Amino acid sequence: MSFPPDQERRDRIAAALRDEGLDAFFCSLPSQILLLSGYWPIFGTTTAVFTAEGQVYLVLPEDEQEIASQTSSAERTVFRPAGLDEITDAQQAIRAPILDLFKQLKLDRARVGVEVRQFVQPASYAVMSLYLSGLHELLRDAFPGMQLVPADRTFEELKTTKTRRELDKIRQAACIAGAAFGAGAPQIAQGMREPEVASCFQSALECASLATKVDRSYGFFFCMSGPNSAKADAAYARTRQRTIENGDLVMIHCNSCGDGFWTDITRTYTAGNPDAKQEDMRSAIMVAHQAALAAVAPGVNARDVDHAARTVLQQRGFGPQFKHATGHGVGFAAANHNGIPRIHPQSPDVLSAGMTFNIEPAIYFENYGGMRHCDMVCVTDTGAEVLTDF
Amino acid sequence: MSFPPDQERRDRIAAALRDEGLDAFFCSLPSQILLLSGYWPIFGTTTAVFTAEGQVYLVLPEDEQEIASQTSSAERTVFRPAGLDEITDAQQAIRAPILDLFKQLKLDRARVGVEVRQFVQPASYAVMSLYLSGLHELLRDAFPGMQLVPADRTFEELKTTKTRRELDKIRQAACIAGAAFGAGAPQIAQGMREPEVASCFQSALECASLATKVDRSYGFFFCMSGPNSAKADAAYARTRQRTIENGDLVMIHCNSCGDGFWTDITRTYTAGNPDAKQEDMRSAIMVAHQAALAAVAPGVNARDVDHAARTVLQQRGFGPQFKHATGHGVGFAAANHNGIPRIHPQSPDVLSAGMTFNIEPAIYFENYGGMRHCDMVCVTDTGAEVLTDF
Repeated sequence: MSFPPDQERRDRIAAALRDEGLDAFFCSLPSQILLLSGYWPIFGTTTAVFTAEGQVYLVLPEDEQEIASQTSSAERTVFRPAGLDEITDAQQAIRAPILDLFKQLKLDRARVGVEVRQFVQPASYAVMSLYLSGLHELLRDAFPGMQLVPADRTFEELKTTKTRRELDKIRQAACIAGAAFGAGAPQIAQGMREPEVASCFQSALECASLATKVDRSYGFFFCMSGPNSAKADAAYARTRQRTIENGDLVMIHCNSCGDGFWTDITRTYTAGNPDAKQEDMRSAIMVAHQAALAAVAPGVNARDVDHAARTVLQQRGFGPQFKHATGHGVGFAAANHNGIPRIHPQSPDVLSAGMTFNIEPAIYFENYGGMRHCDMVCVTDTGAEVLTDF
Repeated sequence: MSFPPDQERRDRIAAALRDEGLDAFFCSLPSQILLLSGYWPIFGTTTAVFTAEGQVYLVLPEDEQEIASQTSSAERTVFRPAGLDEITDAQQAIRAPILDLFKQLKLDRARVGVEVRQFVQPASYAVMSLYLSGLHELLRDAFPGMQLVPADRTFEELKTTKTRRELDKIRQAACIAGAAFGAGAPQIAQGMREPEVASCFQSALECASLATKVDRSYGFFFCMSGPNSAKADAAYARTRQRTIENGDLVMIHCNSCGDGFWTDITRTYTAGNPDAKQEDMRSAIMVAHQAALAAVAPGVNARDVDHAARTVLQQRGFGPQFKHATGHGVGFAAANHNGIPRIHPQSPDVLSAGMTFNIEPAIYFENYGGMRHCDMVCVTDTGAEVLTDF
């Protein structure tokens, strides 16, 4: 218990339990484990219980104990998901410690908030173990008096506003990504294939974390060039095999992770010298970006931030080419278009200090190319702080 | 419908439905979508229905339609998970097309096999959308006469034996990974940090797919050097910040993906010249590897393959240092220690032609280093084919 708790976070979660009339939260998805405990699981087999008393308990595989102790103050119980004496899986191995913990915490007749509904989960490793309905079945069978209450919305709302410690982590993740962009951009040249370009940025990212306090850093870079960049309005980015030609727009999209906190960043370059059309696009995007940024402050409607960016692009004649919302919440996840606050024309969300999201004005011309500039920002007490100021 | 179906796979799935007395399978996890349809989803919002008539239907986001059409012959219905006119999420957007499809297929009173239990899912993208219980609730509410039957075991059994087309995909993924190992290994040198080494291999992987028919190739390389390599018996690999010293063991672990099919490969190098101890370790591992390989044939008990490798390592004095099973099924997933066939001392599994798994004899000396040689193999009609013969 030497690692100090994030008391700000604990207080908010305890308040959410009171507001919802719940006795505890119980989760297994890595993003929720991070929210409840500060630990970003590797393999996905960790579970967390957070009680009304503000205490948090992890039940985690033996292999992850050391790394969990470095980032979380939670009480830990370990289990062994595998061994040579018998064949077991995580669901079998976690059974006894989970049931023991619930009994010890006297939660056998409790109202417990759980994750039930569609969820966007960033990759915690090359593979992820998912319990699906397995743990809920276990609890229902063992404790017929227990009520499992869907708490998906509560988790998402808790994630919108970051604590100071969480913000520091996001700043560090953004700083590492910034170093990767700085090292990768000058290497873009005609004749390179998209995977080569992406791997320049990727390599730089993997080497950039040494100077930081981030324990686990990894990420994904995507390169979309020429006409491929026009397809970047899709829900996903994709590096193909295209060879970059002189004058191409070259869009680099990054989702990187520092100790569980994610970035969502895009920069668009020209291979060679930009032509007049590209300069018009860039000017419109940067003015739209500034307009959105200027609109950000606590109490502002998120849709007004979208409106600010969209109006500039419409006035510059790029309205139909700006095909998606201006942004969405980022931090506990990336690329979650429903992350709160949704910077969307129809958004009901209202900004408040500590919210982190992206601002990503863009112009996509089919068969020609796309340009997007995506920064991450944080709402301050008076306006906005750009977290990706590079 | 121009892409030809994998009839071998369709026949097997239809037979499994008959054997289980089911009318259809319904899935949303990417590995199951791949199994049922041949398509490896990107974002995780795709669902698949496979009927007793041997027909397969995908309900997928508009953004993924083009790429799905290139790898799957399934009938496709698209939905739009997001737009500017309203705020929706995938679970809302997929509701109508899913219900329509089930009605059209007259499955409203059917017995439908679904995924329920703990599952190891490889990363399909930087983030993954998971429906959790959302789709099952949707079906239960809409079709009270429908029975949702857990089919997790059936899916895992279907995945153990690959079709010819699937084997070709695995061979291609292994070939790409082999090129990356070939390009990365000569770059290992003392003074490099683990992330630098890992990124040499990673870059090579990202550039190696051009010559293949693989549409989507990506992967994860991990570098564990010196004492860090001794920790590689954990369920996960992890690149840290250590600087490589002369004489270190340098273990490179790879999980890469080609169109949804995964590799699980490890090689261990020495930075500089191996000493006598390392030569002893390598010799024992390679002999154990050969012994395991020689034991592979249809009808053989998987535990006997483990026994063959373990006996060699015990005879050479490395028994206690070989801390895990000799292998596990690989292909539709990597790093799933419960993948069938489990090459484990207590395994009940029996090998048959077309099964793919890894053989990974290893020696871990705490505070010194670890060595592992992990190859992927396929059971042939008479013995074994090494899929990672490089």
